[in-house]
Amino acid sequence: MNEEDKKRALDYHQFPSPGKIGTDITKPCNTQDDLSLAYTPGVAEPVRAIADDPEMAYDYTAKGNLVGVITNGSAVLGLGNVGALAGKPVMEGKAVLFKRFSNIDVFDIEVNADVPKDFIDTVARIAPTFGGINLEDIKAPECFEIERTLDSMLDIPVFHDDQHGTAIIIAAGLLNALDLQGKKIEEARIVCMGAGAAGIASMRLLQGLGIRKENLILLDRNGVIHTGRDDLNIYKAEFAVKTERRTALDAMQDADVFIGVSGPNLLTAEMVLAMAPNPIVFALSNPTPEIDPVLAKSTRDDLIMATGRSDYPNQVNNVLGFPYIFRGALDAGATTITQEMHIAAVNEIRSLAKDPVPKSVLNAYGLDHLEFGPEYIIPKPVDPRLIERVPAAVAQAAIDSGVSKHHHT
Amino acid sequence: MNEEDKKRALDYHQFPSPGKIGTDITKPCNTQDDLSLAYTPGVAEPVRAIADDPEMAYDYTAKGNLVGVITNGSAVLGLGNVGALAGKPVMEGKAVLFKRFSNIDVFDIEVNADVPKDFIDTVARIAPTFGGINLEDIKAPECFEIERTLDSMLDIPVFHDDQHGTAIIIAAGLLNALDLQGKKIEEARIVCMGAGAAGIASMRLLQGLGIRKENLILLDRNGVIHTGRDDLNIYKAEFAVKTERRTALDAMQDADVFIGVSGPNLLTAEMVLAMAPNPIVFALSNPTPEIDPVLAKSTRDDLIMATGRSDYPNQVNNVLGFPYIFRGALDAGATTITQEMHIAAVNEIRSLAKDPVPKSVLNAYGLDHLEFGPEYIIPKPVDPRLIERVPAAVAQAAIDSGVSKHHHT
Repeated sequence: MNEEDKKRALDYHQFPSPGKIGTDITKPCNTQDDLSLAYTPGVAEPVRAIADDPEMAYDYTAKGNLVGVITNGSAVLGLGNVGALAGKPVMEGKAVLFKRFSNIDVFDIEVNADVPKDFIDTVARIAPTFGGINLEDIKAPECFEIERTLDSMLDIPVFHDDQHGTAIIIAAGLLNALDLQGKKIEEARIVCMGAGAAGIASMRLLQGLGIRKENLILLDRNGVIHTGRDDLNIYKAEFAVKTERRTALDAMQDADVFIGVSGPNLLTAEMVLAMAPNPIVFALSNPTPEIDPVLAKSTRDDLIMATGRSDYPNQVNNVLGFPYIFRGALDAGATTITQEMHIAAVNEIRSLAKDPVPKSVLNAYGLDHLEFGPEYIIPKPVDPRLIERVPAAVAQAAIDSGVSKHHHT
Repeated sequence: MNEEDKKRALDYHQFPSPGKIGTDITKPCNTQDDLSLAYTPGVAEPVRAIADDPEMAYDYTAKGNLVGVITNGSAVLGLGNVGALAGKPVMEGKAVLFKRFSNIDVFDIEVNADVPKDFIDTVARIAPTFGGINLEDIKAPECFEIERTLDSMLDIPVFHDDQHGTAIIIAAGLLNALDLQGKKIEEARIVCMGAGAAGIASMRLLQGLGIRKENLILLDRNGVIHTGRDDLNIYKAEFAVKTERRTALDAMQDADVFIGVSGPNLLTAEMVLAMAPNPIVFALSNPTPEIDPVLAKSTRDDLIMATGRSDYPNQVNNVLGFPYIFRGALDAGATTITQEMHIAAVNEIRSLAKDPVPKSVLNAYGLDHLEFGPEYIIPKPVDPRLIERVPAAVAQAAIDSGVSKHHHT
């Protein structure tokens, strides 16, 4: 961003009042009678009802439409461990997106806790407040244990968006790109650069979608993750392969797909040229991708390219997922978010990109025409069909996987 | 409440949507440009600014106008330990009152933690989220340690409304009632029935306002708290007096003031008759007072009477205090809420009751006339002068006591 844009961003946050979210009252509260219902003596009735049956909290409080967006500030954007408080603008931003795209209320909670146990204890104790919990910007590998533990402790959905949100949008775009390139997922050779939250979760989900482990190479800072390495945490070790390849360039020989969730400019033109015919490059590092999209496209014209940026085609943007996944989970009364629900979201998002684009989307981007193809593999964030279709698909998957409190299969 | 009112209270909470509060977006968020300021890439700027200087959180996030209303559900209304979740309707109700009366945003947080250390750890860890913390419905005596510890750990105001909010309104009403009865606070003999959060905090505050310890008798379930008892916690022991009095009736002989923060119908007509001339009875148990106000007034006509109910004169209602105390504390950037700030609120609230009543207040209650006197010793909750005057007085007291970040004395 240039200096002027930086100033605009600060002004946006500061004026006319600090921050981006507030609370409002959803019931009448003007007269003495109103207040006697909202507070004492009337409020004793819902208290008694919930004390008798905890499920009544979904009838009488805001819990059922309320998600906690919770961080410890240990991996905020690309800025690293800035601490809980400095993560607050990002958490409020997430609250804005939840509200804007799926009308879910969010309390952003910043937790001073670097040790996973402290963070887990804290979130578990405040969990009665919420209908769901979206973990955010927590560093890997701690994020894996934190999410798994909280999800198993709590009877509400727990979702680490940096893992699964990213994985779901990557998978939706990738499946469509593979279709366009005429490649089968079972045969595709994939290189993933970056073995943090997004990398690990994406590779897990892609395996769930049919990619073969032997066709998958994960790279971290030290190169190819192979069975000969002794510096791997258990999450990386899950993806170690027996191979002679060591460098990123080695890994990229004849690869069909590159997924970058790493850092700026780590992918070279030479590596792109080494890929198989009709390759796919997702360079998702933000704001600077693993390779400049213009450079990448100039190296070969059989390439399908996606980035994390809104100013190039095919933006892989989590906002296509989390608002609708939570909407579906909350609507279904899901007690957790299963991989079946992730996959339902993947399929609905990718199928949506194949359908004719509504006029309102064209207008929002000042376009005359947009159709499924190499420059349009995933929907745009403003697409009104997302809220119409994705939550319903996710809710149905919740029912089908037996985690909906409202339906028992 | 009759069955019809109970049904109305449940319906109010359930329809058209569950609960009483929601969140809203306070900045533009429609265009791609808006979203690029609210979220990536623009949001990185306030993150960096806050990482450099934590105080910038007050400029770039909602923290400065955000209060956490936090409970463990251990003493909810008169219903006892109903648990964290069942406390949620009350916490949301508090959020409604904060918003309605002083435009403060509130996240209600329900904490599953009965052990004080667990509760304290949890609240301390999530404290970066908030500009202030209002503790609510936490049982005594644990509430005293919890508030004191959190207040000393944190650099934001921590206020246990069941203690200090109640104490402040009692003190404001009592000082006015003493004026009307022609009694001096230094000579007044006080009996307080109830040695929980409200009783202990009220007696502490009244001592700060000039009441003599030897003129004060505190009663708990076991009668007069005297130095001969061996069943007292340290908070009750603080008020133990050397006396031969043992029963409530003993205590009430020649008392000038009765303050009841205990339970229904514990004060008899005989006890009221035993009081000194021109007595004052605050029977604040809710919804059923310590004595029926009609009965009390029928026993003697030199009595000034207050209750916690809105359908009798002189309602001692915390809503006269907490919205404005926090408004003043937040506006001043207070790092804590001092007793000087409590007393400033007391003085402003009582002085307000002595001024001519605005037309809008008369209209709200359908009254032709209302003036300072035995039937009007404290302002009405709808009085628009509260927001004009109380926060300014509290903020000034914060500055004077040297706890304002914006002003250094």
